[in-house]
Amino acid sequence: MWKWNKSPDTFLGCEQPYADARIVVFGAPWDSTTSFRPGTRLASRMMRGDSWGLETYSPFQDRDLEDVAIHDGGDLELPFGDTEATLGQIESFTEHLLSDGKLPCMIGGEHLLSLGAIRAAVRRWPELCIVHFDAHTDLRDELLGVPLSHATVMRRAWELTGDGRIYQFGIRSGERAEFTWAKEHTRLRAFDFAGLPEAVAALGDRPVYLSIDLDVLDSGVFPGTGTPEAGGVTFRELQQAIVDAARANVVACDVMELCPPLDPSGASTAAACKALRELLLALR
Amino acid sequence: MWKWNKSPDTFLGCEQPYADARIVVFGAPWDSTTSFRPGTRLASRMMRGDSWGLETYSPFQDRDLEDVAIHDGGDLELPFGDTEATLGQIESFTEHLLSDGKLPCMIGGEHLLSLGAIRAAVRRWPELCIVHFDAHTDLRDELLGVPLSHATVMRRAWELTGDGRIYQFGIRSGERAEFTWAKEHTRLRAFDFAGLPEAVAALGDRPVYLSIDLDVLDSGVFPGTGTPEAGGVTFRELQQAIVDAARANVVACDVMELCPPLDPSGASTAAACKALRELLLALR
Amino acid sequence: MWKWNKSPDTFLGCEQPYADARIVVFGAPWDSTTSFRPGTRLASRMMRGDSWGLETYSPFQDRDLEDVAIHDGGDLELPFGDTEATLGQIESFTEHLLSDGKLPCMIGGEHLLSLGAIRAAVRRWPELCIVHFDAHTDLRDELLGVPLSHATVMRRAWELTGDGRIYQFGIRSGERAEFTWAKEHTRLRAFDFAGLPEAVAALGDRPVYLSIDLDVLDSGVFPGTGTPEAGGVTFRELQQAIVDAARANVVACDVMELCPPLDPSGASTAAACKALRELLLALR
Amino acid sequence: MWKWNKSPDTFLGCEQPYADARIVVFGAPWDSTTSFRPGTRLASRMMRGDSWGLETYSPFQDRDLEDVAIHDGGDLELPFGDTEATLGQIESFTEHLLSDGKLPCMIGGEHLLSLGAIRAAVRRWPELCIVHFDAHTDLRDELLGVPLSHATVMRRAWELTGDGRIYQFGIRSGERAEFTWAKEHTRLRAFDFAGLPEAVAALGDRPVYLSIDLDVLDSGVFPGTGTPEAGGVTFRELQQAIVDAARANVVACDVMELCPPLDPSGASTAAACKALRELLLALR
Amino acid sequence: MWKWNKSPDTFLGCEQPYADARIVVFGAPWDSTTSFRPGTRLASRMMRGDSWGLETYSPFQDRDLEDVAIHDGGDLELPFGDTEATLGQIESFTEHLLSDGKLPCMIGGEHLLSLGAIRAAVRRWPELCIVHFDAHTDLRDELLGVPLSHATVMRRAWELTGDGRIYQFGIRSGERAEFTWAKEHTRLRAFDFAGLPEAVAALGDRPVYLSIDLDVLDSGVFPGTGTPEAGGVTFRELQQAIVDAARANVVACDVMELCPPLDPSGASTAAACKALRELLLALR
Amino acid sequence: MWKWNKSPDTFLGCEQPYADARIVVFGAPWDSTTSFRPGTRLASRMMRGDSWGLETYSPFQDRDLEDVAIHDGGDLELPFGDTEATLGQIESFTEHLLSDGKLPCMIGGEHLLSLGAIRAAVRRWPELCIVHFDAHTDLRDELLGVPLSHATVMRRAWELTGDGRIYQFGIRSGERAEFTWAKEHTRLRAFDFAGLPEAVAALGDRPVYLSIDLDVLDSGVFPGTGTPEAGGVTFRELQQAIVDAARANVVACDVMELCPPLDPSGASTAAACKALRELLLALR
Repeated sequence: MWKWNKSPDTFLGCEQPYADARIVVFGAPWDSTTSFRPGTRLASRMMRGDSWGLETYSPFQDRDLEDVAIHDGGDLELPFGDTEATLGQIESFTEHLLSDGKLPCMIGGEHLLSLGAIRAAVRRWPELCIVHFDAHTDLRDELLGVPLSHATVMRRAWELTGDGRIYQFGIRSGERAEFTWAKEHTRLRAFDFAGLPEAVAALGDRPVYLSIDLDVLDSGVFPGTGTPEAGGVTFRELQQAIVDAARANVVACDVMELCPPLDPSGASTAAACKALRELLLALR
Repeated sequence: MWKWNKSPDTFLGCEQPYADARIVVFGAPWDSTTSFRPGTRLASRMMRGDSWGLETYSPFQDRDLEDVAIHDGGDLELPFGDTEATLGQIESFTEHLLSDGKLPCMIGGEHLLSLGAIRAAVRRWPELCIVHFDAHTDLRDELLGVPLSHATVMRRAWELTGDGRIYQFGIRSGERAEFTWAKEHTRLRAFDFAGLPEAVAALGDRPVYLSIDLDVLDSGVFPGTGTPEAGGVTFRELQQAIVDAARANVVACDVMELCPPLDPSGASTAAACKALRELLLALR
Repeated sequence: MWKWNKSPDTFLGCEQPYADARIVVFGAPWDSTTSFRPGTRLASRMMRGDSWGLETYSPFQDRDLEDVAIHDGGDLELPFGDTEATLGQIESFTEHLLSDGKLPCMIGGEHLLSLGAIRAAVRRWPELCIVHFDAHTDLRDELLGVPLSHATVMRRAWELTGDGRIYQFGIRSGERAEFTWAKEHTRLRAFDFAGLPEAVAALGDRPVYLSIDLDVLDSGVFPGTGTPEAGGVTFRELQQAIVDAARANVVACDVMELCPPLDPSGASTAAACKALRELLLALR
Repeated sequence: MWKWNKSPDTFLGCEQPYADARIVVFGAPWDSTTSFRPGTRLASRMMRGDSWGLETYSPFQDRDLEDVAIHDGGDLELPFGDTEATLGQIESFTEHLLSDGKLPCMIGGEHLLSLGAIRAAVRRWPELCIVHFDAHTDLRDELLGVPLSHATVMRRAWELTGDGRIYQFGIRSGERAEFTWAKEHTRLRAFDFAGLPEAVAALGDRPVYLSIDLDVLDSGVFPGTGTPEAGGVTFRELQQAIVDAARANVVACDVMELCPPLDPSGASTAAACKALRELLLALR
Repeated sequence: MWKWNKSPDTFLGCEQPYADARIVVFGAPWDSTTSFRPGTRLASRMMRGDSWGLETYSPFQDRDLEDVAIHDGGDLELPFGDTEATLGQIESFTEHLLSDGKLPCMIGGEHLLSLGAIRAAVRRWPELCIVHFDAHTDLRDELLGVPLSHATVMRRAWELTGDGRIYQFGIRSGERAEFTWAKEHTRLRAFDFAGLPEAVAALGDRPVYLSIDLDVLDSGVFPGTGTPEAGGVTFRELQQAIVDAARANVVACDVMELCPPLDPSGASTAAACKALRELLLALR
Repeated sequence: MWKWNKSPDTFLGCEQPYADARIVVFGAPWDSTTSFRPGTRLASRMMRGDSWGLETYSPFQDRDLEDVAIHDGGDLELPFGDTEATLGQIESFTEHLLSDGKLPCMIGGEHLLSLGAIRAAVRRWPELCIVHFDAHTDLRDELLGVPLSHATVMRRAWELTGDGRIYQFGIRSGERAEFTWAKEHTRLRAFDFAGLPEAVAALGDRPVYLSIDLDVLDSGVFPGTGTPEAGGVTFRELQQAIVDAARANVVACDVMELCPPLDPSGASTAAACKALRELLLALR
């Protein structure tokens, strides 16, 4: 007899029915404000298919996706060229998941999309803090006159959370003015994850949105992204940082900025899948 | 509110429930005997996703997939390295579809896989004829000592049908011995589709298996295949030939040998999707 | 001594000062509404550099770019994610060129951008007609709820010109409803350029906007585009059609939809450059 | 027991010992004067390996490489950056082959290398004529001040043969001055092969050097070359032209300008291999 | 005069005649059970050609391939789709080399092929131990019902050696059950090479098969493989581990799983060549 | 209104007029002696365009390109195939810059081109020392009989400077004879940058030419180069070494050997741009 291959449709090990799931993964395939090299819209599709080259078990954490109740809800259909409608869809879908008691985990797409999910989370938990891994500050006030842009997402998020509530790690690129601004308004750690365990400890049980721009990784490990930055962290450092950050009370999270057209070997997609697996396993 | 994007999971316009469908599309992602450059295993996955760049409507035929009841059953999970088990799965799945009164349409995968479906069809209709579009004769008796190979599939099929029941078109590559052998045993038209309408007329209502190796197309139009052959037919010629062949009593069919890793522009995948759409629309 | 290589900055043979130029080429690097595979934003940059692999002389027309006064004005800086601001820039820049008595020739970018230039042209010449080469109708009323989209550009243009003033050639893809709608509102020729010389003759001296979506070419000749369509015209057919169309009173024109990331061989970029050269030489 | 796979080392079907061979194929992996996109140096290596995806038999000619005595002598080791030393090697090796009574068939490499072989042939047969298939005239007197360049090879060859002895076909690119010069000095047929059979008939038994720049093919069929030109001939037209030209008294020949790094699908390499096979079979 | 370039046919510095060689390198181009992304069949061909971009001298070891007697025997011709026949060829060829007193060094191809060579070695030395570098455990009992698979090779090897004789290093991926099983049956070191020098010291003069799956390297250094795994060892760590392991009594060895189609930059092929050079120099 | 996008024409932040600039960046697009895989000729063009994906500010150095007076002079037009003419152009242009009191910074192109700039610098400052970062010694006396080659550049430079004046770092590839020769004639540090700060301190105010072959980076971080070498330095190590070296009295410098055709992800180009930015910021 025959067997079905369900791999292309679902991320590895995320096959629980919605009703039973604690975590809901969904894709947000959209990159209309990407200013340099587009293509992150294809990330969720590629990650689902290629995730089956991984295993559900992590020897690093000694945990298995088979022991976690995760549903992969598929991709939203987002309108290219209409930023507010897109953010609105993500916000209302995230709200829906949160009101069902789920932990949303978005696969981007460009980093601006995190704003939709953060809007939903901050409405529910006004005391929300954000833990943000990235190569870039994402703190511009506008880009080419556009306030809603991948380069402004954490500035827009700060307008929702206020000072001192955004913890940034691994940052190694931005305008001088952004770094200066960050000194007043966010907690920015350049280049690496030093201080992350302490920050998480200090956060205690406060609700946290964890946003991972995968370009925090060194461009050697993760070339497949729109604006790769050399001099970043190793995968093992990210792996440990994910475990550390997940000790916080993470209420929603995302993994952003894989750009499959810039990943002809598939190794960046594989790294993105492994980062997502580690995140899904680490969430408490 | 949000909308779901169902595109990656189903071929364009093939969203009818199984019970209601007259045609069932399924993927056979396997290429273990491919002797030159592998990768056709990835065809069904890529075609499903990229098919949504097409339209359901064909101005060439003035027909629309929305008017045809087609179900996309997904991919079989075939064991790499085990040829007989793989053919067995395809045979038994095809049998299952035929006994449910469906018209099976397989997306390859390497061309050997057609043998599994032909076995099922010829058991049901011992008088089965085969219409075969290809650049290659596929009439070897073995390749590197292996009798079940992409290069032998029509020879193996002939063992089931006997002389004069395989109609080959577009053939432009093979050993001299294959062309000589064909003179006795098959009806081989080299280079183009001349004589196809007449052959279809002569077939009348006899059950026909239509097997399309996409490398029948010129390598300029269809570079994304393991053994591209220059000097082939244009897409418009194939399009017309599909319509001509579908006037026969096609009881099962396939579209084979797209190799996505050899198609970095995606244009071959797009052409494969369009060929499949035209086939699905043309089936009577 | 040394010599400067000016090639990357200017399209081949377009080095006249602005004041002396009759034709002004400019780039519009933007693709935010592209719904399938993005990247046309990179076309003008790649075309400028690669154009120097061509010659300024066309044996087909027996004309030379050195005999035509053309200025390459460089690229506009368009805000990704802000459609109206982008169209506004193109419109006001085109207006500026027209008021200086120049013939604007835009290098896209996605096809929606033509709307900006058409708006400027139709304001100046309310009797403007449009000659449109494309694989796709581009006549949808909206795409995913977005009225300003690459898939709607000729529908939006029709709102400016009214019935019977858009001449479409080479069309082979669209929804059934678009083809039906076209029967009432545009002059649509499917698949090829039949009737083009007659249409141009009938247009006489009426001002014409000539918009060339390069995917009118067969996907074998022009794979490097977001939605390649097999079954299109050959390059020689396009070359002749450009010469035919340029016999009209073309007041502005564009060459759209080359997508360099989907063109690893560079052959599509070379074809786009040659099409543009032929257009620049043919304009009367 | 085991079997050896000799495919990577020898072009398909060219396995006769040197002593027994009538034709000797050799590779010339060099491209130092290529001014646009380099890489033809890799052609012979790739063609040898990929040729085994073809068959030795040509149904077009009904001939088989197994019936022709051909030796593949491997590649010369040419010094990058030293043009005269490189041409000298090719000239002296070609002389050696001619003095052994062999018919040399060079796989380029850039087109300038033909000059080395033509020098050897013209010394032996001062009445030598050249039949030249190309997209480009190759008739410049210098390029960037360099007289020995891929763009000047037929001009340099003319200095050896004099007026009226170079027959050019398929030409569709060059400076106006080159086309003008050609009217006086060569027999240039633009765009296609019209007149080739007549030219061959007129040549009678005069010794002929046949030089095939594969970019004579349309860039859709043959994108994998440094300066692809749209609007060229189909593979079938080239195939017929090879058969026609080979009816002349061809004493040496070459197949030039495949650029494997620009051929990610491998289809251009496959077309180059097939063109070489057809040439080897057609030589009388 | 001319010089021959022998580079494409032989791995760098492996040009000794068979009779004089102590080490014999051979290629095994086969990957029929690869379940995810195929292509390792092309590794030996690419490695031979690209190896000449390296030097024969290693400053790390201060040794030179010119001082070691190595013969490159070329590639076996293995039948795609027939697993047992393929393993049989490798086994009998390895036996032949061992009986001639040679040290066999296989270039894969997929990792299952190691089983053929191990079968030959374990028959000759029943006390054989295996040192295994890999990202994956390769300890499954079957994959998709197939017992002979790249994912089961060390399980099959264990059936020949018994408990405690397989030393695994660098492992970071597998099913939980494989890691559990390994605790009983193999000596598995996760993530790195800690303990390797001690293990080698303990092995003393026992005969050792050294099997290197190159995906033990971090996916940043070695993206060109079917199932890249982030978080692996650096090249320098592998280089040291090779030197350490080669202090054992290595009687046969292999370097597996380079997948050239997934290596568009060629950097993974270069790393594979360098790893093989270091291995060939380190063997005592 | 509209805005111009000047990005493709100038390297990021290098927009000062020539007269006001202290540093002048220029491109040298030439690679005719490259013996393995060509393409570095395209580096300056790609780096200019892609540099705009970076920021002008370096958090590592806390400096901004906006505070440095740099002019990007564009590319020289160098004659492919004519080595001495090419070196002559670079030499005379560098002389021109030096006589204008500028600090020249060349973007290669292949490493041989450094010789042109070194010739100019050593004529002006006979006591010139060279600091050289590279994977390769570049100390051969000839390559394939050619004395002017990418593999001989530092040997030719030594003929100008004499013993002990070339400081080499990061070297991990070369012939044994080159390493032996280096012991007598240069100061070679293998594998890393140990001793660089001490060397710079010892150099004091002596004029220094700083030549960076980017393949000093590990091939994981920098795969996009003709002869990638695994086992190299990390980007952070290079970043620090650039800052260390720039403390010397650098009078001219270069950044060489990015090969864009081997960089499909663009990450190597991004790393090259960042290395150049760090260099431009660090120059005292």
